[in-house]
Amino acid sequence: MKTAAYAATAADRPLAPFAVERREPGPRDVAIDILYCGLCHSDIMQVRNELGRSRYPLVPGHEIVGRVAHVGAEVTRVKAGDIVGVGGMVDSCRECFYCHQGHEQFCQKGAASTYNGTEMDRKTVTYGGYSKHIVVTEAFVLKIPSSLDPAAAAPLLCAGITTYSPLRQWNVKPGDRVGVVGLGGLGHLAVKIAAAMGAEVTMLSTSRAKEADAQRLGARHFVLTTEPDALDGLAFRFDLVLDTVASPQHDYAPYLGTLKPFGTLVVLGLTAPSAVSGLSLIMGNKRVAGSAIGGIRENQEMLDFCGEHGIVADIETISAAGIEDAYARMIRNDVRYRFVLDAATI
Amino acid sequence: MKTAAYAATAADRPLAPFAVERREPGPRDVAIDILYCGLCHSDIMQVRNELGRSRYPLVPGHEIVGRVAHVGAEVTRVKAGDIVGVGGMVDSCRECFYCHQGHEQFCQKGAASTYNGTEMDRKTVTYGGYSKHIVVTEAFVLKIPSSLDPAAAAPLLCAGITTYSPLRQWNVKPGDRVGVVGLGGLGHLAVKIAAAMGAEVTMLSTSRAKEADAQRLGARHFVLTTEPDALDGLAFRFDLVLDTVASPQHDYAPYLGTLKPFGTLVVLGLTAPSAVSGLSLIMGNKRVAGSAIGGIRENQEMLDFCGEHGIVADIETISAAGIEDAYARMIRNDVRYRFVLDAATI
Repeated sequence: MKTAAYAATAADRPLAPFAVERREPGPRDVAIDILYCGLCHSDIMQVRNELGRSRYPLVPGHEIVGRVAHVGAEVTRVKAGDIVGVGGMVDSCRECFYCHQGHEQFCQKGAASTYNGTEMDRKTVTYGGYSKHIVVTEAFVLKIPSSLDPAAAAPLLCAGITTYSPLRQWNVKPGDRVGVVGLGGLGHLAVKIAAAMGAEVTMLSTSRAKEADAQRLGARHFVLTTEPDALDGLAFRFDLVLDTVASPQHDYAPYLGTLKPFGTLVVLGLTAPSAVSGLSLIMGNKRVAGSAIGGIRENQEMLDFCGEHGIVADIETISAAGIEDAYARMIRNDVRYRFVLDAATI
Repeated sequence: MKTAAYAATAADRPLAPFAVERREPGPRDVAIDILYCGLCHSDIMQVRNELGRSRYPLVPGHEIVGRVAHVGAEVTRVKAGDIVGVGGMVDSCRECFYCHQGHEQFCQKGAASTYNGTEMDRKTVTYGGYSKHIVVTEAFVLKIPSSLDPAAAAPLLCAGITTYSPLRQWNVKPGDRVGVVGLGGLGHLAVKIAAAMGAEVTMLSTSRAKEADAQRLGARHFVLTTEPDALDGLAFRFDLVLDTVASPQHDYAPYLGTLKPFGTLVVLGLTAPSAVSGLSLIMGNKRVAGSAIGGIRENQEMLDFCGEHGIVADIETISAAGIEDAYARMIRNDVRYRFVLDAATI
């Protein structure tokens, strides 16, 4: 069936209405009427072909929340009317070591990206959540806790799991000191989630104007990193630093100095190469680590955790006509803290 | 009491005989007649003041094996005649979080380095193992298993623990694929220890001449990294890569591509800063980690492991008169694989 969507038709053209063909639901499929879809910075990168892998027409969107319209005969976990979510993946091989471990994002055959990819047949192109309807195999459909606002929950599907997963991977526990670098879409959820885990959170930001927000979100301390010697008092302070900054000229080295022995700097942004010296890592057994979204089991765990703690994103809801303007504002960091597309406006 | 030693008197002068004052053993001290001391690359860096922190006269040496001469009244773990070892530390505060955790190398007051440092009084200068005698507090004296040759065991006290510790930190287990970059003092012990842990070891070397040695030491595979595209077939191959290279122009990035998801590149050499991109870490939740020696408990565990598996260094024994020549050969990588000073020649 055809469904209304917004697509990029070339790297340099604005998104425009486009009709996507969705498959007829099979016995294990879930047909979802999309309610909301978050706008992620990677949507802009893909729309503009900044990674060089974009295929057009391209329908972005991998922070999808919707209502189940109907389900295939063998579907057991969700039913019509349920509020569900879909994140960065719509399928994987389900047979390899990583799929068995619950790390479908590292599927050895390559997970099926929610958009600008293919289904596991490696032929059928995937189209994302800037649309009114989507069909996803049950195993990749997540349950949104009823306590959460569906629109504000949408960014959890990418920004939420991207920050939750490293906090779990590196065993953040009550009393740990966690630094969060950058207060944007990822950063604001990192603060909320780390604080809910009981960590003492410090926001490291280049903008004094965000100090009040940081504290409202749960940060105990605020450091203005543009001040000279801003990090001088923070030597050996943090168990973990989540670096959410994506700007190209970003330098990891100063943050390594703020880590305790065995501390980890987790890099979440697609930064340009930053220089790291052997000495800065060796003195204190420090680590620089990357982290990419999370597996399906961990996504559900994250959503349940957010449901329990009442965590959603701070959002601004937009209509489909406002996507280009929202992209422009995202590029200049003018959003507190995530745009969510209202699919009813498509 | 005075003891004979070899000391550097300035960054640009050869080592020369020097009389070191050792303290009278207190009730918890162990007086050790030094038998052998390994020559570590960091000895050269300190002698030549390459880190800018050298104080002269400087007696190097932190891979010490000796025989207990006598012990203080309260010493219980060792007795006269025992073969013992001393590594990179001779004391720490023993009260801080890291000391309590067994990570004395990260003592919050700063552990007492075996040479070119001070005892915990922060006044008494420490002099290392290029000498005939040393007095060390019992808690920092290690037991050398009787199955090991004392001379060949000396390098375990630094090169051994430096490679053993990260293999344990990152939970290497039988069947894991471990890459070792560089076949030198650290690298040859890394191969032996990782193989003894049951890992499938691949040696990544710039020298074809070392292939036979690598296999003799326990490496299953050998990759000549100077070949074009040498790493192309190794994508997603390793659970762990131990990078033992210390040359300044070393690049971590190619080795990140050889790691499996959740794999770690452990940096052991004091390399100049190397560029690491966010993307190369994020795609696969990869890590770059440093590691510095190990705590006392882990040192003893390493020695016991080496005793059980018959692991010692491949050494060339030298006399005190040969130190400068040995340094020159170390700098041009002309040693297979560690020089050990025979203290009887001092």
